Amino acid sequence: MSAATATSVRRDRVRERLEADGLDALVVGGLTNVRYLSGYSGSNGAVVVGRDPSDDRLATDFRYVTQAEAECPGIGVIVERAVLPAVVAHAASLGAVRVGFEAAHLTFADHEGLRQQHRDLDLVPTAGVVEDLRAQKDDDELALIAEACRISDAALADLLPQVRTGLTERQIARLLDGLMLDHGAEAVSFETIVASGPNSAIPHHSPTDRAVEAGDLLKIDFGALHAGYHADETRTFVVGAEPAPWQREIHDLVAAAQRAGVEALAVGAELRDVDHAARSVIAAAGHAEHFGHGLGHGVGLDIHEAPMIGYSTTGILGDRTPVTVEPGVYLPGRGGVRIEDTLVVRAGGPVSLTQTTRELLVL
Amino acid sequence: MSAATATSVRRDRVRERLEADGLDALVVGGLTNVRYLSGYSGSNGAVVVGRDPSDDRLATDFRYVTQAEAECPGIGVIVERAVLPAVVAHAASLGAVRVGFEAAHLTFADHEGLRQQHRDLDLVPTAGVVEDLRAQKDDDELALIAEACRISDAALADLLPQVRTGLTERQIARLLDGLMLDHGAEAVSFETIVASGPNSAIPHHSPTDRAVEAGDLLKIDFGALHAGYHADETRTFVVGAEPAPWQREIHDLVAAAQRAGVEALAVGAELRDVDHAARSVIAAAGHAEHFGHGLGHGVGLDIHEAPMIGYSTTGILGDRTPVTVEPGVYLPGRGGVRIEDTLVVRAGGPVSLTQTTRELLVL
Repeated sequence: MSAATATSVRRDRVRERLEADGLDALVVGGLTNVRYLSGYSGSNGAVVVGRDPSDDRLATDFRYVTQAEAECPGIGVIVERAVLPAVVAHAASLGAVRVGFEAAHLTFADHEGLRQQHRDLDLVPTAGVVEDLRAQKDDDELALIAEACRISDAALADLLPQVRTGLTERQIARLLDGLMLDHGAEAVSFETIVASGPNSAIPHHSPTDRAVEAGDLLKIDFGALHAGYHADETRTFVVGAEPAPWQREIHDLVAAAQRAGVEALAVGAELRDVDHAARSVIAAAGHAEHFGHGLGHGVGLDIHEAPMIGYSTTGILGDRTPVTVEPGVYLPGRGGVRIEDTLVVRAGGPVSLTQTTRELLVL
Repeated sequence: MSAATATSVRRDRVRERLEADGLDALVVGGLTNVRYLSGYSGSNGAVVVGRDPSDDRLATDFRYVTQAEAECPGIGVIVERAVLPAVVAHAASLGAVRVGFEAAHLTFADHEGLRQQHRDLDLVPTAGVVEDLRAQKDDDELALIAEACRISDAALADLLPQVRTGLTERQIARLLDGLMLDHGAEAVSFETIVASGPNSAIPHHSPTDRAVEAGDLLKIDFGALHAGYHADETRTFVVGAEPAPWQREIHDLVAAAQRAGVEALAVGAELRDVDHAARSVIAAAGHAEHFGHGLGHGVGLDIHEAPMIGYSTTGILGDRTPVTVEPGVYLPGRGGVRIEDTLVVRAGGPVSLTQTTRELLVL
């Protein structure tokens, strides 16, 4: 499917929602949503979707005109610095009265500005219209995420033989980042987490100059970015020594919890039930308080996107939805283990796009 | 100055504003502002500044507790996933009634949530309270930005002898990014722009697989990140051939405009007058329409922050304020030149922190 066709199909799906919700137009300012609906990947853009496809517009500023024309063949471009007022004014000029906006992306200040400029418009807050559409991916998107995951696995495979005691967390992260680029990543999906020894007990840890020591747990959470789509993967290793019993115990526990979470990934499953499937394994082993974050999240144009899989999240899993499953057990001051894959929820059962072994490897 | 002292001094300056504005507390959700006021550098945090220093709190979630305790010695930490409601509830529990919030950072949805949870509070929109404080840097901050600029210059100096025809934009960007890390950058400040030949006419251009050809203009816009502080620098070169007359002409013009802009950087100068000083040089040469962006911007914990220096911006330059001066002339389909430095506005005259020569070099 060509880029123009893909984005116009997506805008048509928004258009169906407009009609269902009695809106004349939806203005979209969340940059990832702008990209999803138009192809535009710059840093200052907004889209309006109207009742008729010819009403749709992208607004961006001078710096991005050439880029926008290349990326967004199927939509007219308005060149203005203040992109949100520009698309709202466009909708108003077409006679729109009930204009939806994204309540989670429009700031209070921007809303006030629009309200005062357009007292005749009925500005209607909407929640998650585009995010909900984005959760279920089309074939092009699934292929791009699969490629991002393939790059990530390939980079990790190249990294592992190079890991040894004495290397710092920062050095290991930089090696892995370079390998992802070597394998074709356009960038890294997020700042690579390399956490060694006691640092592995910190769920989100920025690499430091700590050198890896024999017997350390080494937790690596990373992913490649490919054509705007993200991969997300975590593996935990032991370096330079046989695993201590406590290390093997928590690794086995997290692996079992991860399998349980993956097995719960069914189309139509309640999100919190998926979380519970994994969490109950960890809780049964007495480590409930050592797993403080949610089980996973959707992955796509954002590294974290709908659906969120947590113990209190509501909603169900849809078909064709890439998500992570990433339980962890973190023992403060000692070390932690997390195992994470990016998988696609499918009617026939989940497909793991990240495929590095989940066995406890000694490096 | 210790980190705790620096951030508590900053919160005290906010406290003075609270008293002046009749507010009992200010809740701060803009992540850069959170970092400025607390030291916290994670991705989910909020700060409340109250009437008394002991009222101040940082909220963050489970993932960041260890990090927050290390980064934020001078402020109490609340552990909650929903950080904004947590700090507002804290303020309410202390008896705050008039609670300011950041209108440019709070979303419409979050504001609605707070309003419905706290009908007894008077939620008061504020604009730029912390951003305005941030514009004028303390000595520690100036030293960090100077170091970021030093790293950037050193990396560029190492890069230039390696540039040759046949290298792609992407390869050159990756070389430069690696050199910045080699020289001690914690990361790059933003995606490095390497734009060759006709691509140099695109003000913001993502590096492609285009190979540099003899006679190309080569525009490189880049900077190192150091301890959270940014550098921003642009130089434009000619590769593999003597500059064509039109290339030299626009380079000379942009260099003259840049000097004029730098000379206008005086404490107390009107921002739009600074822009005008450079823009009028370009306009007088008949290229007004080829310089479509503003002249510069503040630099600090954000790559773009207050003050913005444009043809329609209002306000004046303060002492100790790092800003960029970055005029450009872009000829669509042919090529473009931009020259950019990061400088500090000082009472004795501006000091350029980026110091690579502004002569037109042939690589």
